[in-house]
Amino acid sequence: MLLHLQTWQEVEEYLEQNQGIIIPIGSTEQHGPTGLIGTDAICAEVIAKGVGEATGALVAPTVNIGMALHHLAFPGSISLQPTTLIQVTQDTVSSLAAAGFQRFFFINGHGGNIATLKAAFSQTYAHLANLKLPHADQVRCNVANWFMCREVYQLAKELYGEEEGSHATPSEVAVTQFVYPEAIKSAFLDKEVASGHPIYSAEDFRRHYPDGRMGSNPGLATPEHGKQLYQVAVKALSEQYLKFLDR
Amino acid sequence: MLLHLQTWQEVEEYLEQNQGIIIPIGSTEQHGPTGLIGTDAICAEVIAKGVGEATGALVAPTVNIGMALHHLAFPGSISLQPTTLIQVTQDTVSSLAAAGFQRFFFINGHGGNIATLKAAFSQTYAHLANLKLPHADQVRCNVANWFMCREVYQLAKELYGEEEGSHATPSEVAVTQFVYPEAIKSAFLDKEVASGHPIYSAEDFRRHYPDGRMGSNPGLATPEHGKQLYQVAVKALSEQYLKFLDR
Amino acid sequence: MLLHLQTWQEVEEYLEQNQGIIIPIGSTEQHGPTGLIGTDAICAEVIAKGVGEATGALVAPTVNIGMALHHLAFPGSISLQPTTLIQVTQDTVSSLAAAGFQRFFFINGHGGNIATLKAAFSQTYAHLANLKLPHADQVRCNVANWFMCREVYQLAKELYGEEEGSHATPSEVAVTQFVYPEAIKSAFLDKEVASGHPIYSAEDFRRHYPDGRMGSNPGLATPEHGKQLYQVAVKALSEQYLKFLDR
Amino acid sequence: MLLHLQTWQEVEEYLEQNQGIIIPIGSTEQHGPTGLIGTDAICAEVIAKGVGEATGALVAPTVNIGMALHHLAFPGSISLQPTTLIQVTQDTVSSLAAAGFQRFFFINGHGGNIATLKAAFSQTYAHLANLKLPHADQVRCNVANWFMCREVYQLAKELYGEEEGSHATPSEVAVTQFVYPEAIKSAFLDKEVASGHPIYSAEDFRRHYPDGRMGSNPGLATPEHGKQLYQVAVKALSEQYLKFLDR
Amino acid sequence: MLLHLQTWQEVEEYLEQNQGIIIPIGSTEQHGPTGLIGTDAICAEVIAKGVGEATGALVAPTVNIGMALHHLAFPGSISLQPTTLIQVTQDTVSSLAAAGFQRFFFINGHGGNIATLKAAFSQTYAHLANLKLPHADQVRCNVANWFMCREVYQLAKELYGEEEGSHATPSEVAVTQFVYPEAIKSAFLDKEVASGHPIYSAEDFRRHYPDGRMGSNPGLATPEHGKQLYQVAVKALSEQYLKFLDR
Amino acid sequence: MLLHLQTWQEVEEYLEQNQGIIIPIGSTEQHGPTGLIGTDAICAEVIAKGVGEATGALVAPTVNIGMALHHLAFPGSISLQPTTLIQVTQDTVSSLAAAGFQRFFFINGHGGNIATLKAAFSQTYAHLANLKLPHADQVRCNVANWFMCREVYQLAKELYGEEEGSHATPSEVAVTQFVYPEAIKSAFLDKEVASGHPIYSAEDFRRHYPDGRMGSNPGLATPEHGKQLYQVAVKALSEQYLKFLDR
Ligand code: NI
Ligand code: NI
Ligand code: NI
Ligand code: NI
Ligand code: NI
Ligand code: NI
Repeated sequence: MLLHLQTWQEVEEYLEQNQGIIIPIGSTEQHGPTGLIGTDAICAEVIAKGVGEATGALVAPTVNIGMALHHLAFPGSISLQPTTLIQVTQDTVSSLAAAGFQRFFFINGHGGNIATLKAAFSQTYAHLANLKLPHADQVRCNVANWFMCREVYQLAKELYGEEEGSHATPSEVAVTQFVYPEAIKSAFLDKEVASGHPIYSAEDFRRHYPDGRMGSNPGLATPEHGKQLYQVAVKALSEQYLKFLDR
Repeated sequence: MLLHLQTWQEVEEYLEQNQGIIIPIGSTEQHGPTGLIGTDAICAEVIAKGVGEATGALVAPTVNIGMALHHLAFPGSISLQPTTLIQVTQDTVSSLAAAGFQRFFFINGHGGNIATLKAAFSQTYAHLANLKLPHADQVRCNVANWFMCREVYQLAKELYGEEEGSHATPSEVAVTQFVYPEAIKSAFLDKEVASGHPIYSAEDFRRHYPDGRMGSNPGLATPEHGKQLYQVAVKALSEQYLKFLDR
Repeated sequence: MLLHLQTWQEVEEYLEQNQGIIIPIGSTEQHGPTGLIGTDAICAEVIAKGVGEATGALVAPTVNIGMALHHLAFPGSISLQPTTLIQVTQDTVSSLAAAGFQRFFFINGHGGNIATLKAAFSQTYAHLANLKLPHADQVRCNVANWFMCREVYQLAKELYGEEEGSHATPSEVAVTQFVYPEAIKSAFLDKEVASGHPIYSAEDFRRHYPDGRMGSNPGLATPEHGKQLYQVAVKALSEQYLKFLDR
Repeated sequence: MLLHLQTWQEVEEYLEQNQGIIIPIGSTEQHGPTGLIGTDAICAEVIAKGVGEATGALVAPTVNIGMALHHLAFPGSISLQPTTLIQVTQDTVSSLAAAGFQRFFFINGHGGNIATLKAAFSQTYAHLANLKLPHADQVRCNVANWFMCREVYQLAKELYGEEEGSHATPSEVAVTQFVYPEAIKSAFLDKEVASGHPIYSAEDFRRHYPDGRMGSNPGLATPEHGKQLYQVAVKALSEQYLKFLDR
Repeated sequence: MLLHLQTWQEVEEYLEQNQGIIIPIGSTEQHGPTGLIGTDAICAEVIAKGVGEATGALVAPTVNIGMALHHLAFPGSISLQPTTLIQVTQDTVSSLAAAGFQRFFFINGHGGNIATLKAAFSQTYAHLANLKLPHADQVRCNVANWFMCREVYQLAKELYGEEEGSHATPSEVAVTQFVYPEAIKSAFLDKEVASGHPIYSAEDFRRHYPDGRMGSNPGLATPEHGKQLYQVAVKALSEQYLKFLDR
Repeated sequence: MLLHLQTWQEVEEYLEQNQGIIIPIGSTEQHGPTGLIGTDAICAEVIAKGVGEATGALVAPTVNIGMALHHLAFPGSISLQPTTLIQVTQDTVSSLAAAGFQRFFFINGHGGNIATLKAAFSQTYAHLANLKLPHADQVRCNVANWFMCREVYQLAKELYGEEEGSHATPSEVAVTQFVYPEAIKSAFLDKEVASGHPIYSAEDFRRHYPDGRMGSNPGLATPEHGKQLYQVAVKALSEQYLKFLDR
């Protein structure tokens, strides 16, 4: 169930049975010479929809822009500052918690969002307690990174081994190829690809990762892989979501 | 051209010819007994894509959550605070302006966003000047409300007369029916519908507009109307965008 | 009744009868070669006092500095950032609402304040609800722009036609001449005056409007016009205020 | 010279000779049974104007609302939060410093503003340095409290001795009587008046100072005293201002 | 009793008897050629511990970084912005007030913290009232500057006369020599030392005070003086603290 | 070398050879019935000093209060909000980076700080780039959690096995016993100890972890263990620091 395709009265009925909601969050940032700028949002959104179908959960609209300050030296990248994303998260969760939602399951497509989301959850719990919202103490948030599910990780390793890398990976590119086969890109991909340098400033990132990839070979991606990865992720996250609801 | 389906190198090439970008912005809020919660975002997104196709402009991902504090007494509504939306807008425009974009054309689906967006534009111009960004003085933002285009307004009046109302209108509902025919809703719509009360707090809003509609009869909407409204809006906004680019 | 000339006990008595208050808000910004930097605050203040006399309403001290970032390339201009003005508005309304005021009628002299004030009102309603202030849901704010009253607008058109323009207008200059006849200025006013360019950054504004005027001929202003405009504005806004109280 | 009665071109000429400006700042808060709510702003404004006349300095519009959180339990009081007043001060000084002003002499009528203003000055210097404003290192701010001038203090002690007290003092009430003789109030003033309790929260303040006075007997005030105090303050602050300019 | 050496259950017991707590606050900033960068924190901490021992009060961990923006042109100095320190103070007091603490006695080692702390206290009282914390109206904060105690000041004048100066003073240096005899420094101290210039920006400060001292001769400091000053400060502040508790 | 025991001139000399600095960061929060409230700060500080001695690095004063919102239901706990800690971190790093420091090695004693610190680093890199600080692109921050070093983890597992748990662990308690043998506590420790519940709000935390421990048996701690753990941590982090400097 997609929240944006419901009426408020349908949401009211849903809440009588269920206080969980899934919030896909991605990023809008460079993904190397062949990766789409929307990769992280596309993956999070499609997988969240799949989990929503599998579990009957309501799925909120996708947060398309995340914390990607380190990618800003590449054109087309957009980032919120961490404090902005904290405020966006708090406003979002607070709006829904006031209506009765209690379980917020963020399906995340971007490693750079994790730290800020966790900080945001802490700040939001305290904010809701300060507001004396009834059941503030029942509100729980969780960030579930599809690419870090054990099953997804294993499949990626099987398919790509070391060439999976850590940004602009063949696995995330494959999922976007599965979703948007009409937007499969080809471009020169140097066999030599930088890796292992930690992430600091945007300028430093571009200096160390000149084409945007971090140790990955996205040339290995296929739409068929994407479908497999999608299915594995939906299955794993559906189980996680149901457990989260029951906790 | 959808930004999320481009690579960073394609954006780099685009910027050599063109410094304009379209940013759809909607809201996630109640739209009466038959209107979708995502109505404003759905309309802004589909029209922005149409304008992008008609003009060759790059279209950024949709800002799905806007300033809808007055709708928060209806479940499923989500709102940013105005200061949060100002920061989101500033972060977004600043990211893109640093890469060379200079014309930001927000296609907006929600009246409640207008004031905050205008405030955000002012703050952002000053921020970019403070940063001493080259060409900061060339950055221009514009909010184009599809439902306020003269041609759209005339068509809505022709189709619905006084029953157009001002929230959960048949015209916006019609556009969503055109986009998502599978999500056409039916529900009891009282002939008596409140109107004319200004917007104050969320609680006051719900007290005065108990089913969420403001003077509208969305029961008149059809997918065919939606298509017509869509086409008229795309045509009108494409012209506006091209003029904006040339200014 | 001017708030600053009352004691707290007089305010306490007032509140037993009446929960309305008028807040004049202007700006401190260039108004062309002959317009006073305080024009917007002077007009808002004198008209607010007139409305206070006509209706018995309490009138708060004038907010002298508003949102005028686009005028900052002209010396003597001062501006708050939008987020600062939002906070000022929220702090002001919250202070008074805690004491029992419920109707906040901002008499505004500056177009640049409107968007930010509207954003501030939204944020303030939510803030008061979060505080669980008794009667938070009864708090209502309204921005009444004296220069946009139908009757004022008609008189200005009669007196000045197209030469009214949109900034440093003869009508606002006339009101200041009526209030401060000792400060009537004369300076060269080019017959050619720029108009029609939207407002973006401060630097862009000065480039397009080199002497600060937007399509206006303030040389037509007279103190007598100012008196007429003042009277028409007071009459119109007094009626608006009384209606606002009763809503 | 009052800034609000100048044109921008007159300010431009002023700046060629002089980089100083006076900013009156008051408060809007209870001043006991007979003191005006605007006392602090009225005193600061009239004295600032006097200093402006005596020294040829430009005088900015009065900041009418200050930091008076501890008075909020009395109706009619309005307060900014300290962080809001810091932002207001920074925005104001930054606007003027960008135009070339370098000496900011705040004439202050309210003890409660002092700490926040000093904090604001520190933050503003750093902000201007961060902006790399030319001559940022020449910007200097000073808060001059008229009631703390040695000469004023001595006169107050002569006139009122211990009955001067520390809030709603006869000396500040006298100055307002001099300025607004038509607004002289009479009310019961208990001979017993609380004093000596430090300032904490608003509720605590009202509990300890039930009629709002702190150890004062404003019944001693006369307009003639007000004139004397005004003259002494103008003389003392004019000298301070001229020294400040030359530093 | 040092808070960091207690368990939460010991704190719970303490609170049954006593709602007071001492919070040492210093700064990390240049203190001239022979003064330690930690001088203000070292002094505040050791004296706070002494007061804790003398009175049985709980002593919180030291706030090591304060508001020292004007020292930032000297390497090794660290400063919070005033708005940051306000937030740190509010978060700290709010955490402890929620647990039942009501008397917050800040023992302060740095003049530059005073204004910001006072602003923070005001903001915090209002914040706690907004939260509707039980006993919010009982919360009281106080900043006690060890170097401004009458007895300390007298001893410093006796020992050093005019050479005490106002920054990098022999008295504060002496206290650090008493605490860290192993870190006594020697360096060239020009007999000529600047004094009397007010504090503005960091760059201005260094220009006027090139070696960091303000009118002081820290060469006079000895560990024995430090011990005396320490003892006098502990005695004076212990009395102040006990009075503060009883108010 | 402890920063607080240096003069600014000694720091200036240090910077000619070395641009690295170590910043210990802990927390002030409950650590179960026998753990000290200062445990995380004590551990971070002592280990940071050890690393400073082993590597010749400068060590900044300890950040004693961290992000511990989830512990606030236990008295004595103090927490910054995440946005406050972000600002503290940004102010701290910016102060030092302006003086020439480029490598910021945070030795962290509290898991709850990690997410916020990472968010803060991202925001700070962007802030420094916005300031156009020379060498902004060379600034690098790292959070090194002593308890997560492989060697420390292995030793803890050897010593305590499953009874290490994840909060109020015997290993961190042992380190505090080594540092403060005079503050070794004894209290009833239930054999049954909760574990495995994720961290949400403060109220939820206390409900699930009633005595504050998370799966740990701190009764196993000894000062001798503490010494071993300290030595292993210093060795491991010294190597990490030196590698970080060289990167
Ligand atoms: Ni990705
Ligand atoms: Ni709509
Ligand atoms: Ni105007
Ligand atoms: Ni006063
Ligand atoms: Ni000091
Ligand atoms: Ni710990």
